[in-house]
Amino acid sequence: MKLNSIDQVLQNAAQAFEIYKRVDAKVRSKILRTIADEIDATADALVVTATQESNLQEARIKGEIGRTTGQLRSFANLLDDGQWVQATIDVGDENRKPLPKPDLRKMNFPIGPIVVFGASNFPLAFSTAGGDTASALAAGCTVIVKSHPAHPRTSILVANAIAKSIATTNMPTNVFQHIEDSSIEVGQQLVAHPLTKGVAFTGSFQGGKSLFDLAAKRKEPIPVFAEMGSINPVVVLPSAVKENKLLPETLAASVLQGVGQFCTNPGLLITVACEGIDDFVATLASTIAKSTPAKMLHSGIASHYHKGKSHLLAQAGVTTLATVEEVDIETTGAPALAVVSADHFIQNPTLSEEVFGPFSLVVKCANATEVLQVIQSLPGQLTASLFGSSLDVESHHALVDALHQRCGRLIFNGVPTGVEVCKAMHHGGPFPATTDARFTSVGNDAIYRFVRPISFQNAPAAILPAELKDENPLNILRCVNNQWTTEKIVITKG
Amino acid sequence: MKLNSIDQVLQNAAQAFEIYKRVDAKVRSKILRTIADEIDATADALVVTATQESNLQEARIKGEIGRTTGQLRSFANLLDDGQWVQATIDVGDENRKPLPKPDLRKMNFPIGPIVVFGASNFPLAFSTAGGDTASALAAGCTVIVKSHPAHPRTSILVANAIAKSIATTNMPTNVFQHIEDSSIEVGQQLVAHPLTKGVAFTGSFQGGKSLFDLAAKRKEPIPVFAEMGSINPVVVLPSAVKENKLLPETLAASVLQGVGQFCTNPGLLITVACEGIDDFVATLASTIAKSTPAKMLHSGIASHYHKGKSHLLAQAGVTTLATVEEVDIETTGAPALAVVSADHFIQNPTLSEEVFGPFSLVVKCANATEVLQVIQSLPGQLTASLFGSSLDVESHHALVDALHQRCGRLIFNGVPTGVEVCKAMHHGGPFPATTDARFTSVGNDAIYRFVRPISFQNAPAAILPAELKDENPLNILRCVNNQWTTEKIVITKG
Repeated sequence: MKLNSIDQVLQNAAQAFEIYKRVDAKVRSKILRTIADEIDATADALVVTATQESNLQEARIKGEIGRTTGQLRSFANLLDDGQWVQATIDVGDENRKPLPKPDLRKMNFPIGPIVVFGASNFPLAFSTAGGDTASALAAGCTVIVKSHPAHPRTSILVANAIAKSIATTNMPTNVFQHIEDSSIEVGQQLVAHPLTKGVAFTGSFQGGKSLFDLAAKRKEPIPVFAEMGSINPVVVLPSAVKENKLLPETLAASVLQGVGQFCTNPGLLITVACEGIDDFVATLASTIAKSTPAKMLHSGIASHYHKGKSHLLAQAGVTTLATVEEVDIETTGAPALAVVSADHFIQNPTLSEEVFGPFSLVVKCANATEVLQVIQSLPGQLTASLFGSSLDVESHHALVDALHQRCGRLIFNGVPTGVEVCKAMHHGGPFPATTDARFTSVGNDAIYRFVRPISFQNAPAAILPAELKDENPLNILRCVNNQWTTEKIVITKG
Repeated sequence: MKLNSIDQVLQNAAQAFEIYKRVDAKVRSKILRTIADEIDATADALVVTATQESNLQEARIKGEIGRTTGQLRSFANLLDDGQWVQATIDVGDENRKPLPKPDLRKMNFPIGPIVVFGASNFPLAFSTAGGDTASALAAGCTVIVKSHPAHPRTSILVANAIAKSIATTNMPTNVFQHIEDSSIEVGQQLVAHPLTKGVAFTGSFQGGKSLFDLAAKRKEPIPVFAEMGSINPVVVLPSAVKENKLLPETLAASVLQGVGQFCTNPGLLITVACEGIDDFVATLASTIAKSTPAKMLHSGIASHYHKGKSHLLAQAGVTTLATVEEVDIETTGAPALAVVSADHFIQNPTLSEEVFGPFSLVVKCANATEVLQVIQSLPGQLTASLFGSSLDVESHHALVDALHQRCGRLIFNGVPTGVEVCKAMHHGGPFPATTDARFTSVGNDAIYRFVRPISFQNAPAAILPAELKDENPLNILRCVNNQWTTEKIVITKG
């Protein structure tokens, strides 16, 4: 795809935005529900195609289809509810002294065409009609998806479902555009184009950071929401070793789940010396050693995993605890577990880099002070987990606090894999986990990535959007004169 | 100030943050109220010092003191109300199939030490204890203010009031630190330091953009909220020329107010050919021509104004309509008005650059189409204004829309100067007006610049902040299971 056609794509997106940004939230909600219905109708074909392209199991793909349609319908519900625009009104007062008080009314508006990069590890839920596309369309933005080269046919099936839905609702075709091109250059051109107003990306640190840098250097810098990976530290306190006998198997299952190909994979297990800890680690190791290597998403991921794993296992002080023989070096990712001392871990930043796949590193700490030092050496993370009794957790406030400061989601007695899609979810942690810890890519609050507030001052009633009108015709919750209410505004003229 | 002492400043700020981030919102609210009281108690000295240092009039400084204390108390009220943390709870369900539903609870937390750059044009309201400091302290962040070299003694008086207030409330001294240093290098070192987590700046495009670039290039990029200037286009429709006979004087007053030293100064007046337009512009010009030059904030600003004005008046097609003779070239800023055709304006981007001072450029358009083209040629703006009857405004939807897309606040039949401090205010426009159009620097929502959400998953009750506890002890409005409510959560165990 050449520059002039990229230019055409953005011109199309900008023109469609002029229409799409104006339509009622109800229309956007209908589009999202229609896309969900179309994906449901395409489910059989999607299962066949996505399992072929991604090496993921049928159950997983079915689950992802459910998650994808669930997200679309959840954003549709959000639009129907209407509160999300955060309508805020301070009613004017012409009689205020010394100066009249202006009437100010503010709400969120869409920012413009958004470029979405499909993710390899979620061919549906984080790809063509995934959370990024759903939230951007919900916000009123037009979307350009660059399909991931690892699942091009899946992407086309979904893109067709979206296109059909947009046609059904009589919206301009270019509300959504799909680019089938695997080159890095096309991605760069999309981000660099002046009409692009935002970017969503899920993938590697190298990929995400380069888009972030590119966007910051534009004449007009734009936001890039890149979710780039994490090692998701898990701290196991002595009470958990004593009381949670199934914990080694639970942790092993989380490490192995989906061939470890999750951004929330627990890549770091921090233990503290206590009775039973050696058995605990031994059980963990033997569980992982008993596992069977499975095919990874594609050969590039497998190759990257092998290199990363070897590199990490070769670091000073690292001892391998469990390995599994590779079945097919071209495609499979054999799990592994290793162990290192707190000292070695703290001194070597390489040990806190993500190895994307079924790998985890145990850091053996002598005491809680060492655990704290290990945590303090960590960069930003999507999640952090703490296993232990309530009493144990409460008595380690410094550990809780250090984890809290470095993550977007703090989990107690639970593994990091499995990201619940709901409003209270925050899937976004401090850099380098993401490029913007203030925003989530999962759950309904993901919509806030693609809007900005604009205030109207003393606007004629006819100009105001329904959300800001005195009558509150949509009956939404609004903040009026600093009070949240669904009441209409009755202005008594003095 | 050397690098090792900058390092000490940030170490201090980070240590104080560990304590300050944990204190009850009530303590933060008390600090803000105490600062406001201390500033009130220092008002007489502030008026003397600030008028001397800034050349601003006594009434203006008194007004700014009121605004500054009003902002501090407004953030205190916000903290007392508590809803601002956006507590969001999705209650777990252990019995959900196929997987238990985790309990997720999310709210906003402070991000860490914030560097605030004082603004020259608001020695109080946008400086040492101004909106940036007030909102950062309200959020729970510690603050480092680099005082503006144009009003060092005013800054020290205010810094002392803050220090006294922090001592009164038994908080660590380093919750607030004041740096008296006018060098650019110190500012750069503060922004570059790894412990700095955010930056607020009000000033020139060059200054703001260089801090933005520096922050983006850090190993860990951090947000920079720079408000950098704007020409605040004002569109005058034919009905306004016909019906609003005082409009030329109103616009002239807005151009001249405070020697034009406002970020919301109307630097661009867009007119459309109609009956009476020549008289309208002539009255505007004669009003400005009759004005008296006043001292600007400091000689650097005056010199910059003279250069900028001369450069703009020398551009092709620009005709001077009104000039005033300079009283003292070293200190005063003589007002001026010029006119240019739509064609010349559109072809020359120099004409849309800000001239900071009492200057405005009239763009004469032949018709509404030309007005639209002029607007479409503009970069992002803090504000945009439209004068005209409701009927006239409603019949020019494309103009309204084009202005809306380029600004943070859209004003009808009002001048852009005068920024109401309230929740519905949005003071932040698309680049290059600011570096982040999603956030406001005026009004209570300015607090959102300095926080990020963090989710707790299945946290023991004792770990949860009061805002997220079942009992809702602070009785705040929360979003529980997608419904906004102040009710407590009653969990029935199955």
